[in-house]
Amino acid sequence: MNQPIEFFFDFVSPYGWFAAERIGGIARTHGRDVAWRPLLLGVTVKQAMGLPALLQTPLKGPYLLHDAERCARFYGLPWRPPTPITFSSVAAERAVVWAVARGDLDVEALVLGLYRRAWAEAGDISTPDAVADAAASIGFDRAALRAGIECQETKAGLRSSVADAVARGFFGSPFIVVDGEPFWGTDRLPIVEQWLESPW
Amino acid sequence: MNQPIEFFFDFVSPYGWFAAERIGGIARTHGRDVAWRPLLLGVTVKQAMGLPALLQTPLKGPYLLHDAERCARFYGLPWRPPTPITFSSVAAERAVVWAVARGDLDVEALVLGLYRRAWAEAGDISTPDAVADAAASIGFDRAALRAGIECQETKAGLRSSVADAVARGFFGSPFIVVDGEPFWGTDRLPIVEQWLESPW
Repeated sequence: MNQPIEFFFDFVSPYGWFAAERIGGIARTHGRDVAWRPLLLGVTVKQAMGLPALLQTPLKGPYLLHDAERCARFYGLPWRPPTPITFSSVAAERAVVWAVARGDLDVEALVLGLYRRAWAEAGDISTPDAVADAAASIGFDRAALRAGIECQETKAGLRSSVADAVARGFFGSPFIVVDGEPFWGTDRLPIVEQWLESPW
Repeated sequence: MNQPIEFFFDFVSPYGWFAAERIGGIARTHGRDVAWRPLLLGVTVKQAMGLPALLQTPLKGPYLLHDAERCARFYGLPWRPPTPITFSSVAAERAVVWAVARGDLDVEALVLGLYRRAWAEAGDISTPDAVADAAASIGFDRAALRAGIECQETKAGLRSSVADAVARGFFGSPFIVVDGEPFWGTDRLPIVEQWLESPW
């Protein structure tokens, strides 16, 4: 059995969204599952790399917002970013950790639903209640998910996922890992596909 | 007459090479010329953004070298990087500034020749003599180019090109500018092509 493709992402990153929309299809084409692995850019970028937050970086911050809008057009996705454009993704990522641990839920649908709520509908996913509302609107059990966000196992699971990302050198969103081989960025998806067909 | 596509790059960046190999063809397809515009990442990254050099950044530095090798395979290019992998690109960029100012030389051939010497042949382009040798080996007048590297107009031209890049917010290599619209990275070439066909 092939290993799943690990997909590390942060909901604050629209590039993670563009790749999330496509990674499931790529995985299925190659007989793989996707392991959805939240990370927190605030930890990987600031603490592990010692860099300022991307959007606060001179030149790069303003460029990236404009680039993301162009990328959305290129990938055929609507673009209505949240206000404010930076927000806490902790609650949303805990919801994903909880859904993965449950084992019987459609995690891809949850990830895409939350991503679209934030970046295609200018919606709020910055609090447990907002996340639960967004998830309920696409068919998830609101009460179960709302409780799951707060449970200790979930919180420990997110910390563990972030620590794993830092330990393995995955600093951005998305990081796509195929059989241990890491690829950073939506723009690397064509190279991910080449790798799945013909690894070194 | 269409404006030329501005192509900002630094020879220390292999991503600049990957894009340099393709931008001429893209420009010709769309009835454009290429304006070859050297910049110095040491200035744009360190001074304008306040960031450490890419290869010295924890996690990101080691990742990028590995990624560049995979990208070379993806683009069908040989990969024999220089030793040491970081070098001064000032002489090589002055040669390009001189060739552009001359107006009667094949600047694309010079850029590609120097890039291939460094990244496909593990060659040295870090000194005026090494640059002149590399250029002579692909048919350029060694003595004229060697003298051109040292002349004051050339040096001022490179300073001006770098200052222009910083002033306009172009911090990386390559930066590809179409009618004032900037695109960062080889991986944005498909979006550059979309833009050339259908700008906002």
